[in-house]
Formats: sequence, structure tokens, C-alpha cells
Amino acid sequence: MPKIVDHDERRLELVDATWRIIAREGMEGATMREIALEAGFANGALKPYFPTKDTLLEFAFSHVFNRTNRRIADVTGGRSGLDALSAFCLEVLPLDEERINEARIVIPFWQKAVTDPGKAEIHRQSMEEWVDTIRHYLAEARSSGDVRAAVDDSLLARQLLNMLLGAQIEAALAPPGRTDFGHAAQLEGYLALLRC
Amino acid sequence: MPKIVDHDERRLELVDATWRIIAREGMEGATMREIALEAGFANGALKPYFPTKDTLLEFAFSHVFNRTNRRIADVTGGRSGLDALSAFCLEVLPLDEERINEARIVIPFWQKAVTDPGKAEIHRQSMEEWVDTIRHYLAEARSSGDVRAAVDDSLLARQLLNMLLGAQIEAALAPPGRTDFGHAAQLEGYLALLRC
Repeated sequence: MPKIVDHDERRLELVDATWRIIAREGMEGATMREIALEAGFANGALKPYFPTKDTLLEFAFSHVFNRTNRRIADVTGGRSGLDALSAFCLEVLPLDEERINEARIVIPFWQKAVTDPGKAEIHRQSMEEWVDTIRHYLAEARSSGDVRAAVDDSLLARQLLNMLLGAQIEAALAPPGRTDFGHAAQLEGYLALLRC
Repeated sequence: MPKIVDHDERRLELVDATWRIIAREGMEGATMREIALEAGFANGALKPYFPTKDTLLEFAFSHVFNRTNRRIADVTGGRSGLDALSAFCLEVLPLDEERINEARIVIPFWQKAVTDPGKAEIHRQSMEEWVDTIRHYLAEARSSGDVRAAVDDSLLARQLLNMLLGAQIEAALAPPGRTDFGHAAQLEGYLALLRC
């Protein structure tokens, strides 16, 4: 069914165009007209793919989240415990240009979500998935004796998740071109605390 | 000079009106017209106080930051080390309705800051002040032997700051009415890690 593949590919082209505009000019710049222009579509030709800007933005955010999760699956495959947890966090942290751009996209999405229950729910579900992932690795690390901290894993998981989210803000609001925020060293330091 | 006091008071009234609108409807709802309406000003009467929406937003954000810092000064007075650090963090964390509303204001500000270097600079300066505060308390806690973690204080300070920022996102994107996110327990757990 080549038609369907084509439809999906075009949706991804539009998502990419949206990202580029948001990362460059912020959410306000991403009008349907600008997105069409950036993606090389005729004005009005977006409707069959995304009837509204809102459906496009929700799809775009879910796609960032899915893409991050695919990268996570690649780097955590065959690993467990603290080793897997470290790989997971290093993939979420904004350690390079691509992921700093993702941070610049996720903040406008959060801003929308503050007053849009549907988007807030997408965010919360994504974060619950990540909390579960972190807890799973922590449980493995407890079994192997790598984590001995006398603090409940559910508290540790949410601590760590909030740290990862805060890092997105730091990276997205940094002067252009800056890519080193010491986040990898911070993570290493945090994992050292858990080993106590 | 009663005229000047009056001018300052009116600016704060406008800031309060802006906050109420942003917390309720998001940044898009906060037009100069809506702000005037909410504050009981005639349309166009804002200009002498804030020539543009941008100057108003920057002043409003600085005011949230200053207000938080005044609360921090109140609760940390006479304290030091981990005790002061805990009081500082409990004041920054979104633990009640008022501070959840502040979180709902700060996220739209961050979104603006992603593509506005002036606002990003205000954010960075505020965060550097807080990192310095955290490091100061950590140094005191080292001297008294309360913190023994074998991780550099500058890493710990930025970890903790990112955790506090991430907590704002969680609170601002939660369903309305929810005020307990376990942030106080997370903080307690984190401070327990530092005591190791």
C-alpha cells in the first residue's frame, strides 16, 4: 500500500519542518502557513495530513518521545541495573546539538500543556513510562547489590526524572552553540550517591 | 513622593493581573488588552507603566523570582548547612496552590526565553544565584560533617537545582487541584543520600 507509506512519510516531513521552526523561532513562529512553506507544501495542502495545528503539535511531540525511546532501546539492549540506567539517562539528557534542539521543542510543548489537558496527559503518560523504566533498573541494581541507598526507589526514580527534566530547561535556555553543561558528570555523581 | 509609590503599586497590580491570566489561560491569553481589563485599567492606560507586553513579562518574572527570594530569606534566617538547604528547597518546590501557580507562570516564561536572549539571561542569572546559595549551604554542611558524599559540591548543587526545576514542570502540568507530588519526601530522600 504505497499510498499509506507516502502519507506517513509526508506527516514526518511536516513534523521535521515544525521542529525546525519551533527550535529557531519558538512556538509562535510555527503557523500552518510557515510550516507549509518550510516543508515545501502549498499553503492549505497540510489539511489532509493534519487538520489543525494542534493535531500536528501533538503528533510532533509524540514523535520526539518515540524517537527518544527508540534511541533508548538501542543503547540499553542487553544491559541491566545501573549500567542500563546510566545509558537511559545519557540518552535523555541534552548532551548534543540534536537533543538540545529536542529540548527547545519540548519546552513550548510543556507551555501549551499548562492550559491544555490533552497535551498534559500525553506528557504525564510519557513520564510515567519513564518512571517505570527507571524503577525497573533500580530494582535490578538493588538485587545485584549495586544500589544500597536507604531511600525508597519510587522517590529515587522521581528525583532522577525531575533532574533529567530540569536539564532540558538549562540546555534550551543556554546561549546558542553551548553544548556542555556537565550533565554527564552530574549523572555520574548521582549514581555514585546511589551506590552508598 | 507619593506619585512614585503609586506608580510602583500600579505596576504590581498589573503584574498580579498578568499572573492570574497566564495561570488561567496561558501566555497567549495575556494580551495588553486582557491585562488592562483584568486589572481594571482602561484599554491603552498600561503604556505609562509598561510600554510593551515584553517589558511587563520581564518585570513580572523578576518579581516572582524576588518574591520567592524574600520567602527564602524569611525561612532560612538564622539557619545554616543542611537545615538551611532544606528550608531553601522547600520554599522553591511547588508545595502549595500559590507556588503551583508560580510554576504555571514560569513555564510560559521559559518558553519565551527559548527564543529571547534577554529573558534567557534573566533566567540564567537567577539560577546562578541559586547555585551559589546551594553551594554555600553545602560547604557549611561539609564543615559540620553533615554532608560526607564523595561527589563534588558543584555537581551536587546543579543536580539539586535541576531537580527543583523539574518539579515545577510536574506541578504545572498536573490535573487541576492536585497539590501533593511527594516533592518534600523526594527532597528528604536526596538529603539523606548526601549524608552518606
